[in-house]
Amino acid sequence: MTSLDDLPIRDDLRGLTPYGAPQLEVPVRLNVNENAYRVPEEVALDIVQEVARALPDANRYPDREFDELRRSFAHYLGHDVTPEQIWAGNGSNEVLQHVLQAFGGPGRTLLSFTPTYSMYPLLAQGVGMRWVPVPRDEGFTVGPDTVRAAIAEHDPDVVFLCSPNNPTGTAIDLETIEAAADAARGIVLVDEAYAEFARDREQTALTLLDRHPRLLVSRTMSKAFAFAGMRVGYLAAHPAVIDALRLVRLPYHLSAITQAAAVAALRHSDVMLSRVDDLRAQRDRMVEELSRLGYRPYPSDANFVLVAGVDDPQATFRALLDRGILVRDVGLPGTLRITAGTRAETSALLAAMAELRPE
Amino acid sequence: MTSLDDLPIRDDLRGLTPYGAPQLEVPVRLNVNENAYRVPEEVALDIVQEVARALPDANRYPDREFDELRRSFAHYLGHDVTPEQIWAGNGSNEVLQHVLQAFGGPGRTLLSFTPTYSMYPLLAQGVGMRWVPVPRDEGFTVGPDTVRAAIAEHDPDVVFLCSPNNPTGTAIDLETIEAAADAARGIVLVDEAYAEFARDREQTALTLLDRHPRLLVSRTMSKAFAFAGMRVGYLAAHPAVIDALRLVRLPYHLSAITQAAAVAALRHSDVMLSRVDDLRAQRDRMVEELSRLGYRPYPSDANFVLVAGVDDPQATFRALLDRGILVRDVGLPGTLRITAGTRAETSALLAAMAELRPE
Repeated sequence: MTSLDDLPIRDDLRGLTPYGAPQLEVPVRLNVNENAYRVPEEVALDIVQEVARALPDANRYPDREFDELRRSFAHYLGHDVTPEQIWAGNGSNEVLQHVLQAFGGPGRTLLSFTPTYSMYPLLAQGVGMRWVPVPRDEGFTVGPDTVRAAIAEHDPDVVFLCSPNNPTGTAIDLETIEAAADAARGIVLVDEAYAEFARDREQTALTLLDRHPRLLVSRTMSKAFAFAGMRVGYLAAHPAVIDALRLVRLPYHLSAITQAAAVAALRHSDVMLSRVDDLRAQRDRMVEELSRLGYRPYPSDANFVLVAGVDDPQATFRALLDRGILVRDVGLPGTLRITAGTRAETSALLAAMAELRPE
Repeated sequence: MTSLDDLPIRDDLRGLTPYGAPQLEVPVRLNVNENAYRVPEEVALDIVQEVARALPDANRYPDREFDELRRSFAHYLGHDVTPEQIWAGNGSNEVLQHVLQAFGGPGRTLLSFTPTYSMYPLLAQGVGMRWVPVPRDEGFTVGPDTVRAAIAEHDPDVVFLCSPNNPTGTAIDLETIEAAADAARGIVLVDEAYAEFARDREQTALTLLDRHPRLLVSRTMSKAFAFAGMRVGYLAAHPAVIDALRLVRLPYHLSAITQAAAVAALRHSDVMLSRVDDLRAQRDRMVEELSRLGYRPYPSDANFVLVAGVDDPQATFRALLDRGILVRDVGLPGTLRITAGTRAETSALLAAMAELRPE
């Protein structure tokens, strides 16, 4: 019987296992930072209508330039972003992959500040570039001095700054991002997947785009727009950057119904952002209550909280799973990462964490 | 003003322009081998219902393993193909990219027989591998001796055999495909994007999968299923090959609505294949009538015809465009490539070609 080892796969893939959080069916899923709320009925109806309108012509290739979607994103982002500055893909992972295909590749390096999003090293490996992890400062923050020193030492071709950062929840301030953009000779991408959950939404790197043609700001509809299942990520940058991404994308990479669904959902940003406000409140409640229970949650600007002070994360993970609650052990000693749920889900989580609290 | 040349793009991308057939709005579009028929109303309705069912849960990540869709593809393909042998992506271009990421990459080579699908060299370049083009035999066919000689000479890591071949329409017989699978130490992929349009549909490399664990057969829903706008490609191969592809795909690469829409469309394969029969009839009509008019169409097993005997392809292209008909100049001297349209579209094309015929 032929197995994977018998096949002529690329040498650097030998012995690897595929990425993946477990897909378990449990009542309370707080493990992969999804938006806890289902797509609201009024929004779903509008999306279905838009999809129904697009479907009969699905025999034709979709608009390769996704013009209407780019206009919708520019309008949603504000900050004088124009459609010519917009790019999109099937999830922000694909957008990041396009960036690395255009500006990275063999012989080049990607630098990030760890712990951070676990896909970065996999994306770097996928295009044959070297990943350079640099440890974050105390408390998982990153300041301008750390950024300048790391860039001076490693001279990276691409820098990914995740802010708010997964899995720690910590944001990077604009002074630090500007320091990176000033210091780097290459591309600096700020991954703002969780930006809408920030305590101060105006603290976005979008405000720096005008001054820095090599600065890119990526976003996703997965979180704030409850669209994880729809796979829509995007970024804003100088139009010349968008031209570079056109060189590496597969033609017609965004389907007609993905474009239609995203355009419809973006019309409802008010409703979606009010849900985000509810989730921010549950996140703040988690931080507050877990502190009171004796845990040490990190301050968070995302829709999840990294909770320290967990004596035995694996035991607590299993005890929560026994209670129908799935969280994430991201491998940082003494911690678990917990997504903010609905009010009821958060109550269930907090009750369980109270039972399981350290002595 | 910053331009593309000022940005630190990969050296091998400098000076390139993005892939792209022109996106022109004309009455008769016979340029990119789309299915001439819109998605039938009964099929569109079923798809919309399936999408509507999936939408509320779009806040959750989609099934990473797309189990239901894999079952649907296995059932549709027949030939004892099992769901464990199925892979899928956002268009067959993405599926081919996964194959090259897993089995190709820097220092490796991709061999194909030219002229063939223009994306192959771009896909090879995208993963840093070298593309080895080998000219086809007389009449754009490929026989076992040519295949054995090319593989012996170039020792490729991956071979792509496009059958029926784009842009020539010519199929490769199973004896030749088996010769390639026997001779190659690496992966042999048969790109059957146009398989449903073959004069003999049973002549598929699917029948060879049992005996060849390094043989892959890719397909697409773009053509037979009138789904170019939906971006769904797939392949069948040994389950170990599927394991290899899992190592390189981005997690959750297929959206919940893409999965839902494809599952629904596959339930209607009878309707869709009867439209394919209509298109085959128009293709045969084109070959016959164009021959009678003095052109030299190549025999075709696809939904398009490569027409030789065109004295000045650029002039004929423009003259057809003046009449509202868009065809494709693929750069082969003295030829144009023309997609089979509806009966009315084909009549319009033939009338125009009669006016423009060589003296």
